[in-house]
Amino acid sequence: METPSVNPEQAAPVSVTAAILVVGDEILSGRTKDKNIGYITEFLTGAGIDVKEVRVVPDEEERIVEAVNALRTRYDYVLSTGGIGPTHDDITADSVAKAFGVGIEIDQRAVEAMTRHYGGAANLTPARLRMARIPDGAELVDNPVSAAPGFMLDNVIVMAGVPNIMQRMLDNAILKMRAGAVTLSDSVSPGPGIGEGAVAEPLAAIAQAHPEVSIGSYPSFGPAGFQTQLVIRGKDAAKVAAAKADIEAMVATIKR
Amino acid sequence: METPSVNPEQAAPVSVTAAILVVGDEILSGRTKDKNIGYITEFLTGAGIDVKEVRVVPDEEERIVEAVNALRTRYDYVLSTGGIGPTHDDITADSVAKAFGVGIEIDQRAVEAMTRHYGGAANLTPARLRMARIPDGAELVDNPVSAAPGFMLDNVIVMAGVPNIMQRMLDNAILKMRAGAVTLSDSVSPGPGIGEGAVAEPLAAIAQAHPEVSIGSYPSFGPAGFQTQLVIRGKDAAKVAAAKADIEAMVATIKR
Repeated sequence: METPSVNPEQAAPVSVTAAILVVGDEILSGRTKDKNIGYITEFLTGAGIDVKEVRVVPDEEERIVEAVNALRTRYDYVLSTGGIGPTHDDITADSVAKAFGVGIEIDQRAVEAMTRHYGGAANLTPARLRMARIPDGAELVDNPVSAAPGFMLDNVIVMAGVPNIMQRMLDNAILKMRAGAVTLSDSVSPGPGIGEGAVAEPLAAIAQAHPEVSIGSYPSFGPAGFQTQLVIRGKDAAKVAAAKADIEAMVATIKR
Repeated sequence: METPSVNPEQAAPVSVTAAILVVGDEILSGRTKDKNIGYITEFLTGAGIDVKEVRVVPDEEERIVEAVNALRTRYDYVLSTGGIGPTHDDITADSVAKAFGVGIEIDQRAVEAMTRHYGGAANLTPARLRMARIPDGAELVDNPVSAAPGFMLDNVIVMAGVPNIMQRMLDNAILKMRAGAVTLSDSVSPGPGIGEGAVAEPLAAIAQAHPEVSIGSYPSFGPAGFQTQLVIRGKDAAKVAAAKADIEAMVATIKR
């Protein structure tokens, strides 16, 4: 297939990177199965933001501070989930403030949102007010579900751990983020009985011939035995299509 | 409740720690939803091994080497999943060898197992033989599903990414690991309508009064509104029970 000429922007697509930081002993113990990593990675990929690393750390200030500082200096954005509730084990906001070396105090914008939600200032117990503590200089990330906000401090976005609250916060947080060139994805499925072993050698040659796309082989094992899906990912549609065509031609020779 | 005297082992329980390293672009893109982290954390917790960190990194040698070296020096064990298949993007074994500064070559024990599985040496294509490459000095971790083995090099255990293969490898790997004192877990559920805000203050006091257990509050949001589960974790049954009793008494006062 002939590759059409591409415009300069396609030739040099913008890459925006992110890391995800999941905070919570309950995830590390296996008691709670994380549902946020898969959601956030898929959401950001669709927005042209490439997730390059995920870390899960316990509810320990030193560990959260260390991870925030390691990730925020390395990627364009860090998105955290968990640890911003009202209880003693919710220490993410304090840890992020410490990572940046800034103060943290009760934020009046958060207090107003929570006052409306809880039906009056009288219902803002000290525990609930704890959720209004925001690091100095942070923008709020609205929480339409339960009012207590997340926040964005520099390039670090702090969200709740409860999935349906995190998802609404992410809808708001994405508006504050730069979008990159979306990574396009296409795939070829050789079908049952054709495992990775059968395609590995020609696939490696095709991968070498198409350096500007990433080609992955994702095996699965089911009733029909082994099969694999060959996935082509890249930011240039023409280059993804060219690699796909070569893979389809290769698979056809195997099937014969 | 009176705390019974505990024997020295309970008083000073053995702690064994682990980290999980998930390797794979497909997890970071959201295309594949990880099913291994939740399984491994629950499995190791049941074996008395405390998972203290999880990282997900891309199929990039430098990133895998960096993560392996960061984690293996910090925790008793590192368990990795993914990147040990036959295709060009399977680079975990080479990366682990590089992290340890050892060589990697075709392992005859692996060749024999794979020869049986594939019905003769003639079927061991170069791609399949790639799966027999094991870092020098590693023990094999048997793979009863598809023969190509995982391995254990020092304190790093390398397993497949396909969940049902990983799970069988983990059954074999655990036999090579030291077990620690199992962390016991119990919980109190205040029930619908009692959210974290209502229990946060007395719960913090109870947590302070029981420093040898960890007390977490895990909120959820459903049709019945907010509720939370209060979880007590510790290695001493009597201390977990004592904290649970105090939490139940506290919750009873809220319900009244």
